[in-house]
Amino acid sequence: MEKIISLSQEKLLQVNELILERMHSNIPLISQIAKYILSAGGKRLRPILALSSSKLLNYNNSSNQDIYLASAVELIHTATLLHDDVVDNSSKRRNKKTANEVWGNQITILVGDFLFSQAFELMVKTNSLDVLQTLSNASSKIAEGEINQLQCQSKPETTTEEYLEIITGKTAKLFSAACKSGALISTNNIDQIKALEIYGKELGVAYQLVDDALDYISETPKLGKSVGDDFKDGKVSLPIIISWNKGTKDEKNFWTRAISNLDQNENDFNKAKELINKYNGIMETYALAKSYSQKAVDALSIFESCEVKDGLIEVANFTTSRVN
Amino acid sequence: MEKIISLSQEKLLQVNELILERMHSNIPLISQIAKYILSAGGKRLRPILALSSSKLLNYNNSSNQDIYLASAVELIHTATLLHDDVVDNSSKRRNKKTANEVWGNQITILVGDFLFSQAFELMVKTNSLDVLQTLSNASSKIAEGEINQLQCQSKPETTTEEYLEIITGKTAKLFSAACKSGALISTNNIDQIKALEIYGKELGVAYQLVDDALDYISETPKLGKSVGDDFKDGKVSLPIIISWNKGTKDEKNFWTRAISNLDQNENDFNKAKELINKYNGIMETYALAKSYSQKAVDALSIFESCEVKDGLIEVANFTTSRVN
Repeated sequence: MEKIISLSQEKLLQVNELILERMHSNIPLISQIAKYILSAGGKRLRPILALSSSKLLNYNNSSNQDIYLASAVELIHTATLLHDDVVDNSSKRRNKKTANEVWGNQITILVGDFLFSQAFELMVKTNSLDVLQTLSNASSKIAEGEINQLQCQSKPETTTEEYLEIITGKTAKLFSAACKSGALISTNNIDQIKALEIYGKELGVAYQLVDDALDYISETPKLGKSVGDDFKDGKVSLPIIISWNKGTKDEKNFWTRAISNLDQNENDFNKAKELINKYNGIMETYALAKSYSQKAVDALSIFESCEVKDGLIEVANFTTSRVN
Repeated sequence: MEKIISLSQEKLLQVNELILERMHSNIPLISQIAKYILSAGGKRLRPILALSSSKLLNYNNSSNQDIYLASAVELIHTATLLHDDVVDNSSKRRNKKTANEVWGNQITILVGDFLFSQAFELMVKTNSLDVLQTLSNASSKIAEGEINQLQCQSKPETTTEEYLEIITGKTAKLFSAACKSGALISTNNIDQIKALEIYGKELGVAYQLVDDALDYISETPKLGKSVGDDFKDGKVSLPIIISWNKGTKDEKNFWTRAISNLDQNENDFNKAKELINKYNGIMETYALAKSYSQKAVDALSIFESCEVKDGLIEVANFTTSRVN
């Protein structure tokens, strides 16, 4: 990721500054919570994608649409994280207590709404109705994806297609919208806009596939949230779907008990990892992620070689090789 | 309210149709919940204000910006109601079980996010960056108002000024934004836009003052939510502030026990109503509301007399005379 980060470094600092500025509120608690979450780190992947997409197309306008756009994208993402953590009752993210753990669900829901509204205020500042249309549609799709996921929770019989639809909604749509919007402020060339939209979408699917696999292989301090959380919540991801589909009757009974009934004992997570390994659940997930990230790279073929393009390819490769 | 309703009737039907159309989702549960809430009735006051404001200024454009705007405003309102009911743990609204009571908090939070995103998609269809700026700012203010309210919960020593700031944020800003946006799509006349913005704001404060007073005087079947909910939650509104300020030491001890400590027994709500009456808490609240609704009416003085103006004046009068 170094190349793409160094290429966006300067703009990214402006994004961080703008976000912190927007978090100012007459209500000190809002600023406090917002700063707490936003300073927790995070890769800033979505704003980087928005900035890099516009940079690839030589965005060169003094009105700073790219900064507004990238900040809006990060705030949408942060708002959904806040609500996700309430919905999942999560206690830890990025090695810190979640906002709901520190301040409770009520405030966290409302601060999420505040961040979401601030995101829209920033989007308006791009002065682009196309960007607004793209990002508001992505927001709807995120909510649909999250609801879809909640409905598939505790259902190990979820199909791969259903799962891919979920992660497309909850993750890939915003990646895609970030890239497309970066293009929209930079060019009228429909092919280029479409290419970046596809790049973002395929990359997003690859990213979430790996993210979900990591819940079964990573170590807590690296991942920054509690490993095994998905399993504990009965959240169904591809490694489980693979193991379920290939599983014996006894193994299916295990998944039904642990995932459908959430009747788990302390050895069950290890048992789950064993079954996932038995059927190559992690390897297959990474392989599928690799095929998506390759599609992302392929979508960039219409662009001439340059540093930014190399950076975007690097992001795609990084996404499917990371192990924490 | 009959005049204003009959004047907006036709457009209001289009708003209802558009909203239901937007609630269509590949995920049946979303459509189901959205229809459940939206069919629960409600006065549709905010879309009526948006439609009436544009009608007052002879909005006459085939692109249906007024319909998109009015629908967006109602969806923002509905999204905030969903989140409010989760935050307040409410079980009843408009004589029906709340969504969180029927489907749980998790789904309700996410459906709220979905409605909010849909509201923004509809706003984009107005093709007006001014409208988008106005409504996204109002959304931020609503969230701030709600957070502010949560922080003042259980604090009977909240000042009248603090309370007015809360209700301005959580209610009046959206009333104001609805009216202002109706003007923005109809005219460039700054004075007229400003007049409707002020009308909406003053009306909104009046409306919420009365709404809060009703929690101490209305009967359940009429109000459609459980009377006394604010008291049970330790929510501080003007009737309490008045009684607290004028109260004896013993009475202040009562408020501290019931509101600050939420240590309540079954007679306490009647006791609270007694103390509120002792200090004319309801009468004073209505009187203050009346002064705000008068300011709303005054703001309309720049417009020539017409049916729509009469209707808007009627709304202001209705707002401060309703007893359920």
